[in-house]
Amino acid sequence: MRVRALWFRDGTLHLIDQRLLPGRTVVRSLRRLREVAEAIRTMVVRGAPAIGVAAAYGMVLAHQERSISPARAAKVLRETRPTAHDLVVGIEAVRSAWVAGEDPLAAADRYRARVVEECYRIGVAGAPLLAKTHQVLTHCNAGALATVEWGTALAPIRVAREQGADLFVWVDETRPLLQGARLTAWELARERIPHAVIVDNAAGAFMRNGEVDAVIVGADRIARNGDFANKIGTYEKAVVARENRIPFYVAAPWSTFDARRADGRAIPVEERSEEEILGPADRRIAPRSSHARNPAFDVTPARYVTAFVTPVGVVPPRRLARVLERKPPA
Amino acid sequence: MRVRALWFRDGTLHLIDQRLLPGRTVVRSLRRLREVAEAIRTMVVRGAPAIGVAAAYGMVLAHQERSISPARAAKVLRETRPTAHDLVVGIEAVRSAWVAGEDPLAAADRYRARVVEECYRIGVAGAPLLAKTHQVLTHCNAGALATVEWGTALAPIRVAREQGADLFVWVDETRPLLQGARLTAWELARERIPHAVIVDNAAGAFMRNGEVDAVIVGADRIARNGDFANKIGTYEKAVVARENRIPFYVAAPWSTFDARRADGRAIPVEERSEEEILGPADRRIAPRSSHARNPAFDVTPARYVTAFVTPVGVVPPRRLARVLERKPPA
Repeated sequence: MRVRALWFRDGTLHLIDQRLLPGRTVVRSLRRLREVAEAIRTMVVRGAPAIGVAAAYGMVLAHQERSISPARAAKVLRETRPTAHDLVVGIEAVRSAWVAGEDPLAAADRYRARVVEECYRIGVAGAPLLAKTHQVLTHCNAGALATVEWGTALAPIRVAREQGADLFVWVDETRPLLQGARLTAWELARERIPHAVIVDNAAGAFMRNGEVDAVIVGADRIARNGDFANKIGTYEKAVVARENRIPFYVAAPWSTFDARRADGRAIPVEERSEEEILGPADRRIAPRSSHARNPAFDVTPARYVTAFVTPVGVVPPRRLARVLERKPPA
Repeated sequence: MRVRALWFRDGTLHLIDQRLLPGRTVVRSLRRLREVAEAIRTMVVRGAPAIGVAAAYGMVLAHQERSISPARAAKVLRETRPTAHDLVVGIEAVRSAWVAGEDPLAAADRYRARVVEECYRIGVAGAPLLAKTHQVLTHCNAGALATVEWGTALAPIRVAREQGADLFVWVDETRPLLQGARLTAWELARERIPHAVIVDNAAGAFMRNGEVDAVIVGADRIARNGDFANKIGTYEKAVVARENRIPFYVAAPWSTFDARRADGRAIPVEERSEEEILGPADRRIAPRSSHARNPAFDVTPARYVTAFVTPVGVVPPRRLARVLERKPPA
């Protein structure tokens, strides 16, 4: 029953097409670098840790193709999406092995295993935070689909449940692409974890009414000072959580931490097509002459974060820089 | 070109079916009380001031039908939707005339004219607040469609534009029913007022990035201390606006003020069907075993409000109780 977002077998990368869930479960089988780049760009696979692993295997496919240099392959993959730091780390893990004459597939497998292992350790580290919590709110999908297995924000929820915690999950639907309603709800429904979908705007009202005991989200990139980028709307949830004295946790593996960025101002934020909001012509939600703005992420300052849930434990923002100095090399 | 949400002619109430905009402009012609009640419940007509006027004409139709008492007609209409105070006021304006032996139609026409006049005066009162503002954010639809003509939140925008202000409007799409993307964008597009639709969750990011100079919204019910109910999500916008020191205005005619409710805890909040979020079976956005919670409104405490924009001027929350003591009788 355990969800896996992707796997590599016989020279082929297999991905669940996350655009079609929960209505249909379709697996895409990719054998070329450019197919992987396109799958990342069009969000067949999404979630920072998962696109890092997908890109690592994209490098393996590039190596199989024999007609492209490691530097060129890395550039094609890096340009797919700008915000997730894991993309850079996943590509580099395989590129460095390739140029050193090592086996790219072994490097990609190691990278995948490390991400899965770190997500499990995030779950173990974060579960005690939720032991006495009843109602937890999450935004977007930071589950197994976003990370290959376990998830980041969902990992402590899974482990806490295994340890007997009585948890209920509020699922922000997460417009425009509805990763909460489609993907997080799908993961929770498969595991029979009680939950309810809400429109994104309702999170604040449930917080104010005392119906949210904790908020936990993933991240796409975390700067050295703890400012972090995550799905658009995360900033609003963080501000309203603090206003209501609700703990706000950010769960991420090491590949999401970007120690070279001093703070959130240095994090690139992707702006995607207005059609994602307005819909296709035959189901357009706004007048034809209206336009939309579609930043896919926002940046939340570290001061709103109660703690980061990392593979080595729970780290408040003020201790983050010191922990990053000692973190295992990428 | 001026938008009108509804009009009464030859014993018939005509309503633009707001569920079909902006794709199709269909006018519903109603001759019976129960049709009006159903139109309010199913949101053919919505927006607190507009449903107040629709209910006033619903009372006129009940009087034409001759088979129902004024008290019974009032009860049928009052039970359609619980949150908007205007509904109560609009019904009472006609019921009291009816039981006094006066002409119900004349009473309904007076009520409609008063709401339209008050909205225009809200525009005049609020326009100076926006004179030096460039980018203003609004939530849901508090325009002509919500109020018969002019709007509440949109009235100061319209008047400021006529006076030469260079305004750009951020339009929260307003899930689940998308009144922002569908209705506010439609009104602004018709009048060529520059605007962009954003997902509700993006409002905070644009505020933090310095791209929002003021927020203005309508209301469904305002308690004596200034706590107010409005479309779900208003509370989040108010909290994030204050966090970013952005003025937050609430525009409403007298029919929205409920001086008998001391504070927000006394305001009833409607919870609507989960299908509004999850969609019909053939286009369901979440797994079949997942449920949703759908409060249609939230309550924002008065401390987040910079000022109320009323027919007699701009009133900060601390002066509201005194102004309400002197307000014209309903």
